[in-house]
Amino acid sequence: MPERTQVAIVGAGPAGLLLAHLLHLRGIDTVVLERQSREYVEQRIRAGVLEQGSVDLLTRAGLADRLHRERLVHNGVELLFDGEGHRVPLTELTGRELTIYGQHELVKDLVAARLATGRPLLFEAPAVSVEDVTGSPVVRYTHNGVERELHCDVVAGCDGFHGVCRPAVAQALTVYEHVYPFAWLGVLAEVAPSAEELIYASHDRGFALHSMRSLAVTRLYLQVPPTDEVAAWPDARVWTELRTRLGRTAGFTLNEGPIIDRSVTALRSFVTEPMRHGRLFLTGDAAHIVPATGAKGLNLAVVDVAVLAAALERWFAEGDESGLEAYSATCLSRIWRVQHFSWWMTTMLHLTPEADPFARRLQLAQLRYLTGSTASATSFAENYVGLPFPEGAFTP
Amino acid sequence: MPERTQVAIVGAGPAGLLLAHLLHLRGIDTVVLERQSREYVEQRIRAGVLEQGSVDLLTRAGLADRLHRERLVHNGVELLFDGEGHRVPLTELTGRELTIYGQHELVKDLVAARLATGRPLLFEAPAVSVEDVTGSPVVRYTHNGVERELHCDVVAGCDGFHGVCRPAVAQALTVYEHVYPFAWLGVLAEVAPSAEELIYASHDRGFALHSMRSLAVTRLYLQVPPTDEVAAWPDARVWTELRTRLGRTAGFTLNEGPIIDRSVTALRSFVTEPMRHGRLFLTGDAAHIVPATGAKGLNLAVVDVAVLAAALERWFAEGDESGLEAYSATCLSRIWRVQHFSWWMTTMLHLTPEADPFARRLQLAQLRYLTGSTASATSFAENYVGLPFPEGAFTP
Repeated sequence: MPERTQVAIVGAGPAGLLLAHLLHLRGIDTVVLERQSREYVEQRIRAGVLEQGSVDLLTRAGLADRLHRERLVHNGVELLFDGEGHRVPLTELTGRELTIYGQHELVKDLVAARLATGRPLLFEAPAVSVEDVTGSPVVRYTHNGVERELHCDVVAGCDGFHGVCRPAVAQALTVYEHVYPFAWLGVLAEVAPSAEELIYASHDRGFALHSMRSLAVTRLYLQVPPTDEVAAWPDARVWTELRTRLGRTAGFTLNEGPIIDRSVTALRSFVTEPMRHGRLFLTGDAAHIVPATGAKGLNLAVVDVAVLAAALERWFAEGDESGLEAYSATCLSRIWRVQHFSWWMTTMLHLTPEADPFARRLQLAQLRYLTGSTASATSFAENYVGLPFPEGAFTP
Repeated sequence: MPERTQVAIVGAGPAGLLLAHLLHLRGIDTVVLERQSREYVEQRIRAGVLEQGSVDLLTRAGLADRLHRERLVHNGVELLFDGEGHRVPLTELTGRELTIYGQHELVKDLVAARLATGRPLLFEAPAVSVEDVTGSPVVRYTHNGVERELHCDVVAGCDGFHGVCRPAVAQALTVYEHVYPFAWLGVLAEVAPSAEELIYASHDRGFALHSMRSLAVTRLYLQVPPTDEVAAWPDARVWTELRTRLGRTAGFTLNEGPIIDRSVTALRSFVTEPMRHGRLFLTGDAAHIVPATGAKGLNLAVVDVAVLAAALERWFAEGDESGLEAYSATCLSRIWRVQHFSWWMTTMLHLTPEADPFARRLQLAQLRYLTGSTASATSFAENYVGLPFPEGAFTP
C-alpha cells in the first residue's frame, strides 16, 4: 500500500525542518525525507547569523529555548578599511539586533523538536524523483535499500541547490544567475574571538571576515581565487594572511588557535522564477542562493517557509488557494531586495581580479560614505539586520 | 616687456570665470585666457542643474541676481521604472533645493561680471603652453595672430578635459578613468517641459531623462550606443523613442516641439591625482569628469575654485601656503564621493550592453528599494542635492 501524507518535505536542513514544525503546529501532516545521516546534518558547518525576525519566528514557534540561552547578541558590525575600523551601530540605527548561533546548532534543535512530535523524519532517505506535481504528486525515495513511494497533496522542495526538486520542474522555471570571480576560504578555529562583533575587512590583498560561533570558537574567512583548494592554505598561511588583512594601524591582536574545519566555498547569486510549479513549492537554497557576505541565506529560507506554512494552512483549512497563488511573488519581492543587498555588499568588499584602480577608489569612496553618512549607514543597517517579513508570514 | 599677473587663468568656462571673480573680490590680479570666442562660450549648451551650495556661493559673490529672477527651483525628482513614476521629495528629505539654470546663462552672467571689473578677459586667445610651473610659471598664448607670454605666480588650469594645462604636467599625475559602453543623445526642444521636475527613466530599451532649461525649453536625453552619430537620430525617431522610454501606465503626455540643438556625448569618469603640480592648479573638468547622470560636473568645478580662491587669498595675503598644500586632498575627498555617486546612479539607470537578465533584475530591485526606504531615499537625496562644501570654501 502506498504511503500518503499532506506535505512531503524533501530535505532536512533548516528550511525543511522548520517548515515541518510550522505545519505540525497547524495540525498538518508531513513526512520529511533527508538524503544524509542525522550526524551529518547536525555537524555540517554553515551560516551563523540570524536576523531578529528569524529569531522572533523561532521563538514564537517554541524552537528557540536553547538558542536564547546560548546565543551571542550583536548590536553592531565593524567595517575595516584604510587601516581603521568603523563601527556601524546597527541597533542604534534600526532598533533591531542580530543573533550569533551556528546553523548546525539550530538544526540540532529542529531535529529534536521534530522527533518529539513523533511525526516521520527519515534520514538516509534520498528522494530519487518528484513526479506528477501538476496532478497527484508522488515522491520516490529509497530507504534501507528499498525504493518507496510517497503520495501527497503538496511537495515542499527544501533540498538545497543540488537537490532533486528544482530539476524536476526545470522546464517551467527561469533561472537568474551570477557567479563571482572569487571564493571564500572559511576556517573554524578553537580560540576566543578577537573582537566582540563581526569585522568585514576591505584590504588591498582581498576581503576578510572575522566572525564567531561562540565565545570559544572563531569563524574566519578569506577571499581566495575560486580555483584554490584547501591544501593551498596550511595553517601558517591562513594566519599570516588573516593577520595582514585584519590588521589595522593600532590596537588589534588576532587570536590564533587550532583550526578544526577548513573549506573553500564559491560565491554565487541565483534565483528561480517562479518558486512554484503546480503542487511543488521550492524554498530556501533550492530556489535561491546569495553570496555569503550579507549572511542572508538561512534568513531567506526562514521567510520562505513561514510564508508557505501560512498559505498551506489556509488552503488545507478553508480551501483558500490565494496564499499558494501568491507564494512565489510574495517571496521573490523580498528575495530580489536581499539579492541586491548581498551583491552590493559583496562587490563593495571584494577585489575583482580584473578591476582597475578606478574601481578600487570607488569601493573606498563607498565605504567612507557608508560609515560617514547617517542615511547611508541606516540603509546598510536596515538591510543587514533584516527588512520586515512579508505581511502574514509572521504567525508561527 | 613681458606681461605679468598674479594668477593666470586658462579657460573662461564657469570654473575660470568664477575663479576670476572670487579672486577679484579678494583683490588678486588675474588674466583670463579663452581659446574660443565670447559668442561660442555664451551659447555652448552644457549642464543646467545647480546645487544649493553652488547657488549660495554665487549669491554671496554677487553673481546670482539674474539667476534668482529666472531660475526654476525644484524640490523633488522622479524615478520612472516598472511603468510608474516614483517621486523622491528631495527638499523634504534634506532641507535643500535644486536650481535649474542653463550653464550658458551662468557663463553670460560671469562674463558680464568680469567685464564690469575692467580686468583682462581675452577671447580667441588660446594658451599654447604652460612652462616652468615648479619655478616661475609662464603661459604662452596667441592673440590676434601674435604669440605672447604671460608671467605669473600661479597658473589656474580651468581649460577643461581637452585643455593644455593637464598635459603640461602629465608626468606628475596619476589618472583614474572609466569609460561607459553607452552615450547620451541630448536634444534641446522649444516646447514647455512635460513635467515640473526632472524624470529619470529606467526602461528596458535604455535610459531616458526629461529635464528643462526654462518654462519654454525642454532638455531631453536618450541612452544611445557610443558609436551613434546625430544623423542617426532624426526628429521622428527621437520623439518616438522618448515617448516609449518616458511612457507610463497612465497620465503622461510628452510635449513635442522644434529641436534646436542635438548632440551625442560620451559618458566618462575621470580623476587626476593630485590636482596640483608646483604652481599649477587644475580645476573642474581639467582635473575630473563625471558622467552627466548625477548633474555634478558644474557643481564640482564651483567647489574646486571656491577652495582654490580661499587658499590663494591666504597665500598672497599672509604667505600661508597651507591652503595650497591642502587644495588637492581637500577637493579629492569630496570628488571621489561624487564620482562614486555619479557612477552608481549611472549604472543603476543605464542598460549595459553585455548585462545579463540578473543584472537588470538587480537594477529594478535597487530602484524599488531606493524609492521605498526612507533611509535609502535620504542617502540618494543628500548626494543629489549636494553634500556640504569643504570647510572654509564657502566664503566668497
